[in-house]
Amino acid sequence: MSILTDLLKVDYPIVQAPMLGVTTPEMVAAVANSGALGSLPLGGLSPEKARSLIEATKALTDKPFAVNLFSHDTAITTDEETIDQMQLFLERLCTEYGVPYKKQIPDSFRFYSYKDLVDMIIESAIPIVSFTFGQLDANVILAFKLKGIILIGTATSVAEAKVLAEIGVDVITVQGIEAGGHRGTFLDHSHLPEIGLSALLPQVAAEVDVPLIAAGGIYNSETIQSAFALGASGVQIGSLFIPAEESAASETYKKAVLNATDASTKLTRAFTGRWARGISNEFMHKVESSGLTLPYYTIQNQLTAAIRTYAQQNGVTELIALWAGQSAGKSEAATTQEIIKKLINSLPKS
Amino acid sequence: MSILTDLLKVDYPIVQAPMLGVTTPEMVAAVANSGALGSLPLGGLSPEKARSLIEATKALTDKPFAVNLFSHDTAITTDEETIDQMQLFLERLCTEYGVPYKKQIPDSFRFYSYKDLVDMIIESAIPIVSFTFGQLDANVILAFKLKGIILIGTATSVAEAKVLAEIGVDVITVQGIEAGGHRGTFLDHSHLPEIGLSALLPQVAAEVDVPLIAAGGIYNSETIQSAFALGASGVQIGSLFIPAEESAASETYKKAVLNATDASTKLTRAFTGRWARGISNEFMHKVESSGLTLPYYTIQNQLTAAIRTYAQQNGVTELIALWAGQSAGKSEAATTQEIIKKLINSLPKS
Repeated sequence: MSILTDLLKVDYPIVQAPMLGVTTPEMVAAVANSGALGSLPLGGLSPEKARSLIEATKALTDKPFAVNLFSHDTAITTDEETIDQMQLFLERLCTEYGVPYKKQIPDSFRFYSYKDLVDMIIESAIPIVSFTFGQLDANVILAFKLKGIILIGTATSVAEAKVLAEIGVDVITVQGIEAGGHRGTFLDHSHLPEIGLSALLPQVAAEVDVPLIAAGGIYNSETIQSAFALGASGVQIGSLFIPAEESAASETYKKAVLNATDASTKLTRAFTGRWARGISNEFMHKVESSGLTLPYYTIQNQLTAAIRTYAQQNGVTELIALWAGQSAGKSEAATTQEIIKKLINSLPKS
Repeated sequence: MSILTDLLKVDYPIVQAPMLGVTTPEMVAAVANSGALGSLPLGGLSPEKARSLIEATKALTDKPFAVNLFSHDTAITTDEETIDQMQLFLERLCTEYGVPYKKQIPDSFRFYSYKDLVDMIIESAIPIVSFTFGQLDANVILAFKLKGIILIGTATSVAEAKVLAEIGVDVITVQGIEAGGHRGTFLDHSHLPEIGLSALLPQVAAEVDVPLIAAGGIYNSETIQSAFALGASGVQIGSLFIPAEESAASETYKKAVLNATDASTKLTRAFTGRWARGISNEFMHKVESSGLTLPYYTIQNQLTAAIRTYAQQNGVTELIALWAGQSAGKSEAATTQEIIKKLINSLPKS
């Protein structure tokens, strides 16, 4: 057993990435039951919704699993003019694609802070909390630590990893630029670090002492071996689980992921106002070339949410946020158990 | 001996990256004399200049070395209005920094095609030709192959690697997004592939049969081991040689590289019109936020050349093209021989 598997109380140093809109209690439980770490995404959810997901997961497994929080500042606002212009633009876009448009009233209170979930997580006796998009408040860290909860932060640069080590996280997920979905970046948003895993991971390993989990583009024994060579003690894998049977992704989204190539994805702020990697489509292209100011996360996220949901449900591929990493095309349609077993078999034999 | 070292006729599977403006005959010879592959950059040079550099290198080593060509289309033009506006902008920028400005007359004939160098390379009995920015014409490939010259192409995506394998290159350099300097991208410039080495390399290895050289962010035994795990037979290293004694980089440029962090660099078209990675500075920022249309490579390259040269010679850091990769800060001031020996000692013991 490595330090990491000891800390996470799992048999194998593999983490299923938390993917809001994709990961289900069934997926988390299947990963946990196979001896790896499942991660239940709770970012932005209400305590009630989060609690029901935790309970649904617990009903399917007795094994430990992690919950994942969005630890960003929720007080960000955008001026009305910017919001109005974006709404006009989105309305025209919807008309073009025959998608019904309902004007959204952005309300930052609808997007819950991670602080709203702390008590419930502690009551639920969750052993591991991972977080992204920021640090955690000192009193939240203290509350979790007093209960023996293991904390996993997310870093996209050496500077961020150092901050996380200083505030006392137990494990750091090092997110290479290859990773699908949102960047965890929380320092200096004006200059998004876009550091490839193979440059980032060894430089982080040289600067911090906590165990590292490598994230981004990992899909087989070669990429796992590479991550370990670069200084990771574990690997986090997301895209491979998108086409899983237990995934909440629509068939259209799954198909796009299965058909992706190494060059299919791009970083974009178009969908949520936060940088994220997804399969390039017309929504990204049209929002980015609109010349409009993009409202910050979570404002843009709220403005586009109904459109994205409709697009998923009705197979309008060009308007779906097709979050995926640079190895997403290496995924296969299978059960979560089959996917995780294959990854476990890809671990180096020790 | 591996297939790659056999092909390259070297003792060690390490390639010193060709860096125009940095690499000197002394650097190439020091690498060659240490048993690795030095690469002499000839991109855009006249046959006379190229020949004199080859002769200078040969005077310092009997070992084989590679020459590097820019195999892009040189027929690209930009309308006069775009050029005029950029020149006005650059003139104002120079005034701001106290840098003398001399209006450049862009002339694509001043930038030689690789085709102008083919005969001279064959006459010089160069054993290895590497190239970037494109394919090679079929008759050029034939001419080189008839002389037994080994060809190394550069790919930044699986699709590009497949094209290179089809036209018959012997070796492919797989350039991860971590790499400093210009992107080798030659297919679909509208969507620059920004694929991290750890996602790109294994996906290329699964699709082509030629030996691969990994490039981008490699600097120590961990990153070399990782590259081999991902399917490379060799590694190419650039940034570590920028601060070498034999480097033509100015002291200002060397210092910027030595002080770089993992997050210091950005991709930019500001200096040359072609995407390249360098340490972020005011030139990049001001050109990119100018709202002006950027003339394509090599037009923008010619418009900015004198400014960049003056800035290097006079220590105006903010106007230098500080090409560097995402591990550039791991470099050390030393001789080329010391740098290459350290890398050779970092190779896995077989």
